Amino acid sequence: MWQLFQFPLCPFSRKVRLLLGEKGVGYDLVRESPWERRDEFLDMNPAGRTPVMVDDKGTVLIDSWAICEFFEETVNKAPMINGTAINRAEIRRLVAWFDEQFFADVVAPLMHERMKKRLIDRLSPDARVLREAMKLALNHLDYTDYLLDHRNWLGGATMSLADLTAAAHISVADYLGGIDWRGHEQTKRWYSGLKSRPSFRPLLSERMEVISPPQHYDKVDF
Amino acid sequence: MWQLFQFPLCPFSRKVRLLLGEKGVGYDLVRESPWERRDEFLDMNPAGRTPVMVDDKGTVLIDSWAICEFFEETVNKAPMINGTAINRAEIRRLVAWFDEQFFADVVAPLMHERMKKRLIDRLSPDARVLREAMKLALNHLDYTDYLLDHRNWLGGATMSLADLTAAAHISVADYLGGIDWRGHEQTKRWYSGLKSRPSFRPLLSERMEVISPPQHYDKVDF
Ligand SMILES: N[C@@H](CCC(=O)N[C@@H](CS)C(=O)NCC(=O)O)C(=O)O
Ligand SMILES: N[C@@H](CCC(=O)N[C@@H](CS)C(=O)NCC(=O)O)C(=O)O
Repeated sequence: MWQLFQFPLCPFSRKVRLLLGEKGVGYDLVRESPWERRDEFLDMNPAGRTPVMVDDKGTVLIDSWAICEFFEETVNKAPMINGTAINRAEIRRLVAWFDEQFFADVVAPLMHERMKKRLIDRLSPDARVLREAMKLALNHLDYTDYLLDHRNWLGGATMSLADLTAAAHISVADYLGGIDWRGHEQTKRWYSGLKSRPSFRPLLSERMEVISPPQHYDKVDF
Repeated sequence: MWQLFQFPLCPFSRKVRLLLGEKGVGYDLVRESPWERRDEFLDMNPAGRTPVMVDDKGTVLIDSWAICEFFEETVNKAPMINGTAINRAEIRRLVAWFDEQFFADVVAPLMHERMKKRLIDRLSPDARVLREAMKLALNHLDYTDYLLDHRNWLGGATMSLADLTAAAHISVADYLGGIDWRGHEQTKRWYSGLKSRPSFRPLLSERMEVISPPQHYDKVDF
């Protein structure tokens, strides 16, 4: 059985969990708070980051990109990087877009202000930084609206790792109160569809200590 | 024929160029300075980042990860993400390590202080930031020394995308005077081997306007 080292609001771990859920791969969750820089965790992953996966034979998989490609290569069920080489490049472009741009613009500042400051230093968030992250989130939702005007799913005609990655990041931003859903109907409809998937339900029911999500967070109709 | 939009010191474009060189894929270089945020470039890549590749049929490939996987999938020659699924995960872990950790710790601050400040604002670099980047570079070279004590190449028994990615980032840091080679014999020997490859020679002979590399930069013996 695989073990997944993560914490409830790590978007990269959420991406991996959605993929494993779709593929029907079982795993146990192990709680890891990377900011504590535990020696045993650093021995396993010198980068000190979640997600990390370990199996009974001692195989260690590190980095959500490497982990997702690994399961895509080894589990045939529910291919999530699918289609022609050009389709696959488009899926990976969007995965990188959410992991880098959306994460840096929206998720990282929200996590810093609303989670790390609270948990580690017991400080209150900086309202200016929060406002800026929420404003950038709206630009990103304009872009997903635009993509969904032209395609059924973000990466093309079928559900892919692009959708799972986007949903992972958006769900963390939404938990932290960073998403204003008004006026983004296409993205809202798409996200509602993802929220109702069995792979997403366990994620939506988990809570991070001390921090509560807004009312609508785990509702399929919101 | 492919066109590659890039500038001489973009490490992600260098990674792609090394891969294309090893695989024998031809391409023309198109100079793009992403900080100018050219409208036509933003229309092609809304992320506004290099590298981007375009072919005669209008195919657009964006993001070095997506581009490398594309050519790995479509060109059999010189496989660079090779071996078992576990080997491939290890290669991808190290690619992510250099693209994220080494880039953020070393290359990004060097590029900012020594290139962008100079080109864009005509300011001088901040010595404190440079010192910190150079110090972190040494920690990274300790890690590559450690890996090369146990393996022939960074990612395992054969040359892989991990080596090309590491060499791409290290070469930009070296151009910008950020690498102190003393005391890192394993990494130096490995890097000297890469420098002598035909895929690397054109890169080493290019210059970025205004900024000159140190004497040893393009020498195989250094
Ligand atoms: N590229 C990595 C990024 C992982 C990452 O940034 N994880 C965060 C948690 S969401 C982390 O562990 N940060 C701690 C640190 O950077 O020290 C991946 O895709 O797995
Ligand atoms: N994940 C991207 C990163 C590309 C990237 O950061 N490129 C830099 C140049 S080295 C860039 O275009 N920066 C301009 C910007 O971020 O606005 C890749 O691997 O291609």
